[in-house]
Amino acid sequence: MADNNGKNFVIGVDLGGTKILAGVFDTKLQSLGTTKISTKPQRGSDAVIERVARCVLDAIDECDLSTKQVRAVGIGAPGAVDPEHGEVIFAPNLDWKEVALVKELEKRLDIPVFLENDCKACLLGVYEQELKRKQRHVLGIFIGTGIGGAMIINGELYAGSSHTAGELGHMVIDVNGPKCSCGNKGCFEVFSSRLALFRAIQAAVKDGQKSVLTEMLGDDLKDLRSGDIRKAIRRGDKTVEKIVEEAAEYTGIAVGNLVNILNPEIVVLGGGVMEALADEMMPAIVKSAKSHVLPGTYRNVEIIASKLGDNAGITGAAVLAREKTR
Amino acid sequence: MADNNGKNFVIGVDLGGTKILAGVFDTKLQSLGTTKISTKPQRGSDAVIERVARCVLDAIDECDLSTKQVRAVGIGAPGAVDPEHGEVIFAPNLDWKEVALVKELEKRLDIPVFLENDCKACLLGVYEQELKRKQRHVLGIFIGTGIGGAMIINGELYAGSSHTAGELGHMVIDVNGPKCSCGNKGCFEVFSSRLALFRAIQAAVKDGQKSVLTEMLGDDLKDLRSGDIRKAIRRGDKTVEKIVEEAAEYTGIAVGNLVNILNPEIVVLGGGVMEALADEMMPAIVKSAKSHVLPGTYRNVEIIASKLGDNAGITGAAVLAREKTR
Repeated sequence: MADNNGKNFVIGVDLGGTKILAGVFDTKLQSLGTTKISTKPQRGSDAVIERVARCVLDAIDECDLSTKQVRAVGIGAPGAVDPEHGEVIFAPNLDWKEVALVKELEKRLDIPVFLENDCKACLLGVYEQELKRKQRHVLGIFIGTGIGGAMIINGELYAGSSHTAGELGHMVIDVNGPKCSCGNKGCFEVFSSRLALFRAIQAAVKDGQKSVLTEMLGDDLKDLRSGDIRKAIRRGDKTVEKIVEEAAEYTGIAVGNLVNILNPEIVVLGGGVMEALADEMMPAIVKSAKSHVLPGTYRNVEIIASKLGDNAGITGAAVLAREKTR
Repeated sequence: MADNNGKNFVIGVDLGGTKILAGVFDTKLQSLGTTKISTKPQRGSDAVIERVARCVLDAIDECDLSTKQVRAVGIGAPGAVDPEHGEVIFAPNLDWKEVALVKELEKRLDIPVFLENDCKACLLGVYEQELKRKQRHVLGIFIGTGIGGAMIINGELYAGSSHTAGELGHMVIDVNGPKCSCGNKGCFEVFSSRLALFRAIQAAVKDGQKSVLTEMLGDDLKDLRSGDIRKAIRRGDKTVEKIVEEAAEYTGIAVGNLVNILNPEIVVLGGGVMEALADEMMPAIVKSAKSHVLPGTYRNVEIIASKLGDNAGITGAAVLAREKTR
């Protein structure tokens, strides 16, 4: 560390479609503090990059540090990214195409910036901080607004040939299922993402099924959040419970498929939906996965929910920043 | 080679549920000759191992060689195998459980024997002989009686944590689909394997649909083979053509799922069904795969049918034997 000119800190940024989260870490990955602001993607990529820079600077200031003490910034961005050229190639939920994120951020921060896909960053955080790099082959499934994934293979993030490996949210598991935003039918994401849960609950309520959520939020279920779903289940809401149970069963089928294909030592589930609903969903996920994995392949496979929650992304981005400046 | 005491040849064996194929290769992987006998799994594992040994010895004799000139034997066996301990752990289509194949073969042959899963051996053969190891990430899908797969990741066969990676035939692609022999519903294998094609054709004929196959083979379609399906299509059989087209579409969906997850440089389709029906199936497979791969991920992915056919397994097993005795 001394050989890094007293630059003893790294920043991890999680750039999402809704919010930007920045965390300051020391080089042992201890968190010193985090800052969060909204993304406001409708303002365009320049404005968002400006906001990312501000979030990073605020986080540094919040921790009573100066940019001179920061060795590097890692950032996880959604969609297809090109880490080598520091570009976000295609990010539908930011409405970005070919944005030179790294160059633009470095211009504003005067700190080296390193880019990774958000799910890959999350898995890197889980692998380093939560799993302590104990396994060689790890599958990460992140369930939020959409569903994405990433893999550790032979102890390293697996990128694939054009850095897009891990797009498991669009694995078709029901060819005749409901239409997905990607244009195909019956993708995993259509059944188990936050959007899928919200749609199913709204449809059920519209259909006249009873739910405590209408008491909590009104008949239009405005501002429904994953946390509300948890509260509803804990208050005995059978309508919501059944919908979540079904989403968990589909998740288990997806996990089963992926375990058969990849034979990892461990499957880690994360993302906002899992953070809010792990207790409610995990038993059904594990049961459904077990019944879909071939005999022999299931042995020794662990299926767990990450405990890092929202911090997986910033932690992984910090790990990246640290790795790149060792 | 001289440093291997004049042992300038390796043998590759493909042990299938129906037949055993053994091929003699020089260390540049030029084939000198092959021998084939039926497996007769109903006689039990000892008898089958005896037959494998006989097939190997016949192949050596056929090429006017002696066992003393053979450096090693590689063997690809179906099901879950443990290469390290030389054991076939579980092979449903041989009805084997925990068979010490390597030890038993070495006893009979007095040549070092190396074991691999059959699909992994096939992909190794394709990778070395057909692709010339040009790509770093390769997905192999082998469609025969059942469907299996294997992956090359970072230039090496990927085994997973317990050597069962690649079981993509049981990827669920239609949760409400027909029942599979594995107990689940709508596995890839249920739609596109040789058995699936045969079942669909038999059902269509029983249902009164016209097919030239009944002229060729009689109403019960006894002894139907993949080659007959090709002949029927070439004779303008619309019933058979439609069934094969559907199987190809499902295969394309599976390929799409796997490309999204693994982002390989190339997907190679092989196995008996592809050997017989590549011309008929490939256009529909590629079209369906393209429509299921996320934009950005499809770029640069090649989807091809292997030209090695039946020789993929013995070639890969020979590659293994050569690698292990370098």
